[in-house]
Amino acid sequence: MSITVVGSIAFDAVQTPFGERERMLGGAASHFALAASMLDQVNLVGPVGDDFGDAEMAVLRTRGSNVDDVEHVSGGRTFFWKGRYHDDMNTRDTLDTQLNVFEHFEPKLSERSREADVLFLANIQPGLQLQVREQCHAAKFVALDSMNLWIEIARDELEQIIGRVDCLILNDEELRQLTGAPTTVAAAREVLQHGPSIVVAKQGEYGAMLITADDFFALPAYPLERVVDPTGAGDTFAGGFVGLIASRLEHGLDRDVLRNAMAYGTALASYNVERFGTEALASTEIDGAAVRRRVEDLWRFGRFDRLDVALRA
Amino acid sequence: MSITVVGSIAFDAVQTPFGERERMLGGAASHFALAASMLDQVNLVGPVGDDFGDAEMAVLRTRGSNVDDVEHVSGGRTFFWKGRYHDDMNTRDTLDTQLNVFEHFEPKLSERSREADVLFLANIQPGLQLQVREQCHAAKFVALDSMNLWIEIARDELEQIIGRVDCLILNDEELRQLTGAPTTVAAAREVLQHGPSIVVAKQGEYGAMLITADDFFALPAYPLERVVDPTGAGDTFAGGFVGLIASRLEHGLDRDVLRNAMAYGTALASYNVERFGTEALASTEIDGAAVRRRVEDLWRFGRFDRLDVALRA
Repeated sequence: MSITVVGSIAFDAVQTPFGERERMLGGAASHFALAASMLDQVNLVGPVGDDFGDAEMAVLRTRGSNVDDVEHVSGGRTFFWKGRYHDDMNTRDTLDTQLNVFEHFEPKLSERSREADVLFLANIQPGLQLQVREQCHAAKFVALDSMNLWIEIARDELEQIIGRVDCLILNDEELRQLTGAPTTVAAAREVLQHGPSIVVAKQGEYGAMLITADDFFALPAYPLERVVDPTGAGDTFAGGFVGLIASRLEHGLDRDVLRNAMAYGTALASYNVERFGTEALASTEIDGAAVRRRVEDLWRFGRFDRLDVALRA
Repeated sequence: MSITVVGSIAFDAVQTPFGERERMLGGAASHFALAASMLDQVNLVGPVGDDFGDAEMAVLRTRGSNVDDVEHVSGGRTFFWKGRYHDDMNTRDTLDTQLNVFEHFEPKLSERSREADVLFLANIQPGLQLQVREQCHAAKFVALDSMNLWIEIARDELEQIIGRVDCLILNDEELRQLTGAPTTVAAAREVLQHGPSIVVAKQGEYGAMLITADDFFALPAYPLERVVDPTGAGDTFAGGFVGLIASRLEHGLDRDVLRNAMAYGTALASYNVERFGTEALASTEIDGAAVRRRVEDLWRFGRFDRLDVALRA
């Protein structure tokens, strides 16, 4: 199987209580690809500018990702985001956003990217996500991310694309904003009425919930004493989640596959936030053994053996 | 075994998106006792005023709780709190707080309350918690709750009482505020250096984490489509948590007991928030079978069987 991801490739400038970076490789598609490539072959689709160099391209190629559809826009500059995290790391201020080459981006997929079995539509304008969905007619599993901005200014197109995917991966607050439902569980059940058969509610430092028509699973984030830079955690989670599904798709998607997908996404995201930007997942230190170790920990952290308890009522 | 709880007994006025109540039984000790009494015998210690009637006393006596130390302050009025929850139920504004009989409260424990094996110091002024701790020399397990106010205005006494308990149960934000640590895990590890051997970080709608010197366990909240009134959820959780520990204390506190305590606290809290105030846990509908059913669900929602996954790194 193979996975195509369409989304942003960026330079990020971030300030966190643990330090700052002026200009580092970022973007949803980059983070997703670095995680998903641990589990399956990835095709990366997104635009970059003249300022995007060989060093950055080499990072995108980690673990054999196909970068033929990384479109070099001559005379353009790469998407740029600058943000500052507050002390608790749970909230951040965006200080600057420069769309640059993203402003006129029209996704053009090669045959290889179009023919992928699995498609991840990272957070970009929903109209573009629809275009990509059209092109990838062969996809057997399609997952989608989005954000509050599109709920506010492009709701019609967003609802259209949600109706055409198998899985919606969204922050819990955005799920509630999208549906107007008072709880995340109610919001997810509402989304399940409109196309997707799987909803994943990302909860930041608290982990993630998986909701299907007949199952519920919640996995807390991996417990870390130190979080250096949360940027890209959600996309890294999505990469592990979708990557594991892709690696298992030919055998069918059962409960075990989905729950393991949550665990691999969570483990990979935990490594991501321990360093700046893509540093952790581009390094060779984070290998299969390291990922398996944290999945094993998560397996232990969430289970209990029921005692026979005498209740007084 | 038996449990003594010292804390507030109150009238609450709440407004939530699902309705409002002008005056209903509330207070940390009330919520705690209603939950803990599902699992063990409870002694309730706290002051009430002339406005506290037989109907409210009858609720406090649910499942045989001993109310001999509910002190009736003649000429006084019961502690009153009024609050309004926002649409997402995660944040609330306090509209009014009247300390009333709580202003001059000096906990006086009868021999029966003093001799309890387990003590829960609900959120009151840390100096009073210290006084109660002194009186309960026989207690084999002592748990403590507190709040941001005491971190700000009574830190010395709060640190003293934390040094004299086995278990600190605190909101995650308050744990970070107390220690200055950047993550909840780091904050809990810091607290473990100062006396308690168990730290529980309450995370509101996201559940709770348990941290000891050699174990970590996280349990998401029970998934609910509808939350009617979150008031008292934390104290109900504490009641289930401490109640289960009390019911098992004679056999020793192992990992299984602590994890089941988390599950019983979580299950009881989930019932509590489905109705206003103490309505759910004072009703006979929420019986042992109902609690066991949700514990069973929680057991299923958090576990996964590991697949043999081939990683590409």
